[in-house]
Amino acid sequence: MNDHRVTGADGSRRGPAENAQLALLLDVGSAPKPGNVDRDHDHDLAELRIEHFLAGAVGSGAGLRRAAAGAPVGVAFERAVAGMSEQSGGNTQFGCLLLLAPLVRGAAEGQSLSPEKVTDVVESTTVADAADFYRAFEHVDVAVGDPPEDLADLDARRGADAIPALRDRGLTLYDVMAQSEGDGNAREWTTGFERTFATAAAIRDDDGPITDRISRAFVDRLAREEDTLVRTKHGPEVAADVMRRAADARGDPDAVAELDEEFVAGGINPGTTADLLTAATFVALEWGVEV
Amino acid sequence: MNDHRVTGADGSRRGPAENAQLALLLDVGSAPKPGNVDRDHDHDLAELRIEHFLAGAVGSGAGLRRAAAGAPVGVAFERAVAGMSEQSGGNTQFGCLLLLAPLVRGAAEGQSLSPEKVTDVVESTTVADAADFYRAFEHVDVAVGDPPEDLADLDARRGADAIPALRDRGLTLYDVMAQSEGDGNAREWTTGFERTFATAAAIRDDDGPITDRISRAFVDRLAREEDTLVRTKHGPEVAADVMRRAADARGDPDAVAELDEEFVAGGINPGTTADLLTAATFVALEWGVEV
Repeated sequence: MNDHRVTGADGSRRGPAENAQLALLLDVGSAPKPGNVDRDHDHDLAELRIEHFLAGAVGSGAGLRRAAAGAPVGVAFERAVAGMSEQSGGNTQFGCLLLLAPLVRGAAEGQSLSPEKVTDVVESTTVADAADFYRAFEHVDVAVGDPPEDLADLDARRGADAIPALRDRGLTLYDVMAQSEGDGNAREWTTGFERTFATAAAIRDDDGPITDRISRAFVDRLAREEDTLVRTKHGPEVAADVMRRAADARGDPDAVAELDEEFVAGGINPGTTADLLTAATFVALEWGVEV
Repeated sequence: MNDHRVTGADGSRRGPAENAQLALLLDVGSAPKPGNVDRDHDHDLAELRIEHFLAGAVGSGAGLRRAAAGAPVGVAFERAVAGMSEQSGGNTQFGCLLLLAPLVRGAAEGQSLSPEKVTDVVESTTVADAADFYRAFEHVDVAVGDPPEDLADLDARRGADAIPALRDRGLTLYDVMAQSEGDGNAREWTTGFERTFATAAAIRDDDGPITDRISRAFVDRLAREEDTLVRTKHGPEVAADVMRRAADARGDPDAVAELDEEFVAGGINPGTTADLLTAATFVALEWGVEV
């Protein structure tokens, strides 16, 4: 496993930054993933098309390379989001990058990528990392839920305006994630990326082309847990229904394809599950799953 | 136009290397392109799947960045091919990179990318560039035609073994291209990238999402000229037939989709036309076409 991580800077082997970029691309290259922008369809309603995700992945590269070079997680994340947003579709991969930034940092430290290593990374984040996280919201509109009333001054949608409140309270980026209880991505930060690693293991242990593995793992995840983005945009009942329907369709390619069409038609986009799959794909690539 | 080329190293704007990488990705993200691996289908026969092209584009990044930083065209090309080949599908983008390397070098020199500028770049190549070109053949199997008998010692398939013959004759990379008369990519090198710039103008002047523009420009090119790869693999009659059929289908989305299915079923892959489209997409992005 170390072998394929030795270089990357010179292009002769993929390093962590390159694997992260490839994971972002495999997310759009894998289909069907019910309701997601992927190779089979764009999201006409949202004006999000495949080219925006491709440009987002390219733009993220420089920030991801900074993470691989040991830059603070906040800096790497903010730079990746800045680059990602250099396309006209809007927010394509903010959530993915929030997971990838610490994972790439962890992978770059050598040895096999593990929950312990990435936990070290996220627990070592600082107030400066948190400030960069808030700055990243200045680049794109991100769909987030309302914070509790006593945390209103820390609403992420305030962007850099929230930084003084952050400093007053001395919150690190890990602390900010710990306060975002309902968010699927934040929960990865505070649970040792438990779901990410479990899904990476499912991808690794599956057979066939990696895009098929990702598609199957996506449906499995969707069947197992409510999608945060669906709940934020459509409410808890729709989120629960999406989960039940994914469970029913699981394992039946025709049913999965049907669900895909239906979710797209209904504007249902399980984006948080897509974020998780991208992070899991990255881990699987780091573990040596072949492309 | 200069504006969007100012940076790239820091990820806040796409520079030439990033636009080249995006052009490689848009090539697989645009459909239908009759007979090509694209978002709608893989090439089952050839064991070439979309993930190999995505990994190839990611792997090319470091070599493309060297071109953007002013490295010799041969070094940048060989490094890009080395990185591209770090996937299990085989040759995905060798021809594209042969066009992109000098174009990226030209674009990196500032001002608007023009035929004159890229002609300067290719005419300035050296024997060392030619040697690196031959070394690149060591990384992947590339489908090329037989050279004339008096040039047998320069057969590209000999890889680095051909380098002494190259040095004996004092051939630059431009000279090598000038001797590869029948090859569509070599012809771009010796004609100021005439078709590349004409196709870039067609993409720029078209309307709608860039992926649709690429798809239309692909069919137009295919209708206008025989594809080198098709001729190398299937002979001149098939190449002429492909051209005629593209001309008949042009402008009719249903007919184009049908042609696509048929070409894929028959193993017809107009790869040289795809290379040209990727180069043209790069130029269009450099000229400011929005994604």
